[in-house]
Amino acid sequence: MPVGTQATVKAMTPGDLRAAGAQIILGNTYHLNLRPTAERIDRLGGLHRFMAWDGPILTDSGGFQVFSLADLRRVDDDGVTFTSHIDGSAHRLTPERAMEIQGLLGSDIAMAFDQLVDPSLPRDEVAEAMERTHRWARRSLAARARPEQAVFGIVQGGVDPDLRRRSASAIAGEDFDGIAIGGLSVGESKAEMAATLDVLADALVDDPRPRYLMGVGSPVDFFTAVERGIDLFDCVLPTRVARTGQVWTADGRLNLRNARFLDEAVPIDAGCECEACRNHTRAYLAHLFRARELLAYRLASVHNVTWTLDLLRQLRSSLADGSFGVLRARVEDAFGRVPVVGERPGV
Amino acid sequence: MPVGTQATVKAMTPGDLRAAGAQIILGNTYHLNLRPTAERIDRLGGLHRFMAWDGPILTDSGGFQVFSLADLRRVDDDGVTFTSHIDGSAHRLTPERAMEIQGLLGSDIAMAFDQLVDPSLPRDEVAEAMERTHRWARRSLAARARPEQAVFGIVQGGVDPDLRRRSASAIAGEDFDGIAIGGLSVGESKAEMAATLDVLADALVDDPRPRYLMGVGSPVDFFTAVERGIDLFDCVLPTRVARTGQVWTADGRLNLRNARFLDEAVPIDAGCECEACRNHTRAYLAHLFRARELLAYRLASVHNVTWTLDLLRQLRSSLADGSFGVLRARVEDAFGRVPVVGERPGV
Repeated sequence: MPVGTQATVKAMTPGDLRAAGAQIILGNTYHLNLRPTAERIDRLGGLHRFMAWDGPILTDSGGFQVFSLADLRRVDDDGVTFTSHIDGSAHRLTPERAMEIQGLLGSDIAMAFDQLVDPSLPRDEVAEAMERTHRWARRSLAARARPEQAVFGIVQGGVDPDLRRRSASAIAGEDFDGIAIGGLSVGESKAEMAATLDVLADALVDDPRPRYLMGVGSPVDFFTAVERGIDLFDCVLPTRVARTGQVWTADGRLNLRNARFLDEAVPIDAGCECEACRNHTRAYLAHLFRARELLAYRLASVHNVTWTLDLLRQLRSSLADGSFGVLRARVEDAFGRVPVVGERPGV
Repeated sequence: MPVGTQATVKAMTPGDLRAAGAQIILGNTYHLNLRPTAERIDRLGGLHRFMAWDGPILTDSGGFQVFSLADLRRVDDDGVTFTSHIDGSAHRLTPERAMEIQGLLGSDIAMAFDQLVDPSLPRDEVAEAMERTHRWARRSLAARARPEQAVFGIVQGGVDPDLRRRSASAIAGEDFDGIAIGGLSVGESKAEMAATLDVLADALVDDPRPRYLMGVGSPVDFFTAVERGIDLFDCVLPTRVARTGQVWTADGRLNLRNARFLDEAVPIDAGCECEACRNHTRAYLAHLFRARELLAYRLASVHNVTWTLDLLRQLRSSLADGSFGVLRARVEDAFGRVPVVGERPGV
């Protein structure tokens, strides 16, 4: 899912997203409720109509952003009080309010409100947040705002195998439409992420519901996760790195701000069918980035989103035709075995 | 002509420009020669290929930008020495070098190198710059870089009727492919601009060549100028004001940053066929501007360029069917009789 934090996947139109092959996008409860507010989006006909995207939308619950606020929030068992990063005003999120907001936004999939913690905290703190996440999960389900809206629960528990098993069992025991894995890609090592996904693959082995790994990933991360049963991802990386001049290609990551690209009269990736690769050269993009032209951010974003969704299409076919390992080796050769850390939409 | 200062009409692709109905665009010699340099664009196949625009391109001569540099340039009769606004390096433009650069860029229409002065300067200074412009015009013609490239001469002379008549006669006496009018829309009043265009309409009454009014204009300015025989314009206003949230409509200028638009679920202009008006509401655009989303600048630019080119199409038909006065009254009612001052691409 490309991430449309503020009701737009940055620099891209809905038409660009369709052309890139996007089937579903993500919207952020925290940002949209602060501006333009969930009530306003509801009055304007819901998030689909507001942003003119007629495909499915998943909304997060706001939990991730609120817990990123660090000193600007206070947690109690009922919910979280926090300070807006826009104007310093005070706000409150509870499981009930998070579900109400997502009902007003009218997303197709709503996420339960969860408590994320740094996995390197002491075990009892990670366990306490996990237990609270389970109580909030039940309250979120009970507060489902629209019968037609799917609701996904979120497994927490840091990188502790025992906590993860307990959390998977608690969340899978509820009547959710899908199971999300939260609390990863937040600073743990790649090995810890893979080990945690192994634990969850075992714990959920008989569960038929879709599994969503939140905030992942980079090209290499997709293989680690799909191999362990993950079906769905969201990540701001493709658009965020694009705006800094980094583009993803069959040959790995290129930084278009590098002087050598100023004279390369070839597409970013000759195998890519995006608007940037069909019409423009690396030399032109390199010029646009140096001149700080808006078109640079747009074309690089269109490329990275198209390229990423194409990689995932290839990954899906590779599962069917048995070429997963070959494809993975190719991507690991290009991007390296220790990729950049996946990021989730920050505040 | 939409203005593509740095080899891009800001925030728009060539596809957007074609969809907006653009037939010809402008490129800036000053900017392109500093970055990525004319020699590099030539090596990459010329400006058309570099920016992937297959329609006609007119390049200015760099004169306007160099003379905008004020304290950063020194004029002598041979040319101008100036300091780059990018890195402070020293550069020199002469009529011969301006034509060489435009030859390297490979534009369809090149402009003679001229000296622009503030029309409020003493008459002898305006006259001196005008005489120099005439000498540089002949040198520019003699230095034509490509036989297939059209070259337009530029009439100067401030707002002095006598100087303008002399300049029109001097430029029209040379073998140019078109006549441009420079030195207007640089701070003079609307009445002075109209009076100067009247003088030139008389002076050039039998001249069959296309006439290009440089750096104009706003919606109302087009009527003032077309009525006085102008065929061609360039102006950064549509894209520049778009990036501040100002959009042009049948009801005049709207500032999408105004709070009232946050709840208006209607297109910018219901009569406009651009991508922004077909797919999006004022409410959505107002949100994007407040959230400083890149998509805001893109959609508002697409709208203003489309709307402006559509106005010019209507203006052309109104000349044929006799409704010029009706159309003009409608636009003046919407935009006011004293419009914003047209701007030329500044440094």
